[in-house]
Amino acid sequence: MSLIATPQTMSFNEPLLLSSGQRLQNYQLAYETYGKLNEKKDNAVLICHALNASHHVAGVYEANSESDVGWWDSMIGPNKPVDTNKFFVICINNLGSCFGSTGPMHINSETNKVWGADFPVVTVEDWVHSQERLIRALGISRLIAVMGGSLGGMQALSWSLEYPDKVDHCVVIASAPNLNAENIAFNEVARRAIVNDPDFHGGHFYEQNVIPKRGLKIARMVGHITYLSDDVMNSKFGRSLRNGEIKYSTQDIEFEIESYLRYQGEKFSDYFDANTYLLITRALDYFDPAKAHENNLTKALEKSKAKFLVVSFKTDWRFSPARSREIVKALIDNKRSVTYAEIDAPHGHDAFLLEDERYIELVRSYFEGIHKKLNAVTTHE
Amino acid sequence: MSLIATPQTMSFNEPLLLSSGQRLQNYQLAYETYGKLNEKKDNAVLICHALNASHHVAGVYEANSESDVGWWDSMIGPNKPVDTNKFFVICINNLGSCFGSTGPMHINSETNKVWGADFPVVTVEDWVHSQERLIRALGISRLIAVMGGSLGGMQALSWSLEYPDKVDHCVVIASAPNLNAENIAFNEVARRAIVNDPDFHGGHFYEQNVIPKRGLKIARMVGHITYLSDDVMNSKFGRSLRNGEIKYSTQDIEFEIESYLRYQGEKFSDYFDANTYLLITRALDYFDPAKAHENNLTKALEKSKAKFLVVSFKTDWRFSPARSREIVKALIDNKRSVTYAEIDAPHGHDAFLLEDERYIELVRSYFEGIHKKLNAVTTHE
Repeated sequence: MSLIATPQTMSFNEPLLLSSGQRLQNYQLAYETYGKLNEKKDNAVLICHALNASHHVAGVYEANSESDVGWWDSMIGPNKPVDTNKFFVICINNLGSCFGSTGPMHINSETNKVWGADFPVVTVEDWVHSQERLIRALGISRLIAVMGGSLGGMQALSWSLEYPDKVDHCVVIASAPNLNAENIAFNEVARRAIVNDPDFHGGHFYEQNVIPKRGLKIARMVGHITYLSDDVMNSKFGRSLRNGEIKYSTQDIEFEIESYLRYQGEKFSDYFDANTYLLITRALDYFDPAKAHENNLTKALEKSKAKFLVVSFKTDWRFSPARSREIVKALIDNKRSVTYAEIDAPHGHDAFLLEDERYIELVRSYFEGIHKKLNAVTTHE
Repeated sequence: MSLIATPQTMSFNEPLLLSSGQRLQNYQLAYETYGKLNEKKDNAVLICHALNASHHVAGVYEANSESDVGWWDSMIGPNKPVDTNKFFVICINNLGSCFGSTGPMHINSETNKVWGADFPVVTVEDWVHSQERLIRALGISRLIAVMGGSLGGMQALSWSLEYPDKVDHCVVIASAPNLNAENIAFNEVARRAIVNDPDFHGGHFYEQNVIPKRGLKIARMVGHITYLSDDVMNSKFGRSLRNGEIKYSTQDIEFEIESYLRYQGEKFSDYFDANTYLLITRALDYFDPAKAHENNLTKALEKSKAKFLVVSFKTDWRFSPARSREIVKALIDNKRSVTYAEIDAPHGHDAFLLEDERYIELVRSYFEGIHKKLNAVTTHE
């Protein structure tokens, strides 16, 4: 029996002051919730999403449907690691995204024009602040856990710093304390591909009724390469030819890997917004909690009070285990409780979305531990 | 005192049968030579160039000039590792390239139109065959060494297979026996960026008086990332901001690494031909001497009679040391003489063009050995 998800939206009229100094006068957030908030409202888990995902993290939209399955359905649901029979799970679409929360394709109420490229640049901290408002509006004053992978992990980490008294557990998966030069470089290639697409029109393409699909395709292709490990690419595609033999063409598809990447690019350009891609990659670039502390991550994490689960994947070269270990070290320096696991999965960065048993069971066991303590506390009171 | 280089060209009217089955009716090759061919014509070294380089491998074009220094000037010249006081060094611009040899921007003598995208697809083997003709025309029947880095290393390896009786020593640096899926994937991103640029016009942009610069820039940016190691990018650029502080812009330059990549892209798009980029990346994709031998590299290298020097660089993730070791293993399986060195340089793939002392001295010592034997033979006769 599938979990049925129901997308909701919440509107906010109190202006949101952004890291850039700009103010977003009003906005709405799209979100989904699963499971039930208990009476004490202390069983809420917030899931933060990564670059191209949405608030639809688990379940399906219609009973007996097999389409539109949430992006982390292997992790969240009844009897799953983050068990919706026990926890009240919330996932919120990030501001600036293109899946329902206010973003570049919406109307700027102050100008009555579509935002386009003028949508304010948002940061991980801005997202966290906007999420906190929604959590508060749901009557929740404290999250039992915040969890995310990749960019979602950065949000989880940021939650523990922005609201140290509101987060019990912080689960940071396949993430990093900031992007390195190579990560920024790949983001920049993607952005340039989009911005230089003549159909981008400086980010105001909606009025022209065109979409910078060429740029989006390239952006996705280059992104996709960084999600996969060398090994998985070689075992899945290797040098396999699409048509069994070489056709001697520079423009047609020769190798399976080309076909796969073009398909991924095509699919992505059908549903993702170009301005959103720019905004979200920039939020990734900017995230750097150590910056305000003379690049000392230990100092930066001093504020955090949460208990941590940090997970990395051996073949992830986008956010390598070494980057996760930086977080772990800074937490240990601060004498924080941290469980760290380096999973020997072959899939690269994508592993965080896949069903590796050791990984799934690790998260299950961590959340079982959280639930036990929650019950113990409830019983004692 | 600088070595003065003089570019030359040689025309060929005998058709060249290509791997694709197509015939190139006539063509010219641009090349440079350095040092003197001895009387016995047995001191010739052929240098093969990589993706974006030319036949201008060493020296300068004008006395006392510091511009236009050859791309491997650290390696080749008087008293340098490949010593032009001892060896006669030849470097030939590859067919299909854009630096003087016949390529897409030239006139197809059969149609009297610019070739453009109709220039025949060439392979590493085709280049080797065309180079052999030029070598023969210079009166050389045997090369004392063929040497190249990256794609140039593939050509050197191919020489030892196509003309086993004409190569004494084969020097293969920072190369691989074929591209893996990830290598092909990056090439495909670059090609798609070029082909999807509206100024590409299906490869017939010369007639339109435009250049697909946007695509070329992206191609170069993505290529450049793969040439550098993560470590060198972090130490050279890290997260340094261009203007000291964040401007909150998705389109302007924020980080030094962005500025660097955009500059590299801009520079490249000023001088490199888009059709050439497609052709050369395809030649890279196709190269796979083991393919005709049931993917058994040992079997494929059976033909080779040369002595090998194989060099890789620890931080090279484009053509990792593991790929060089595949070549070394196949040579050892065949009981061939092979010297292998893995240089612990921090620069990634680019290291093969840089002046790491251990690397430079290794090549020097290898060529000194070659020269000693050459003299020994000469003296005895």
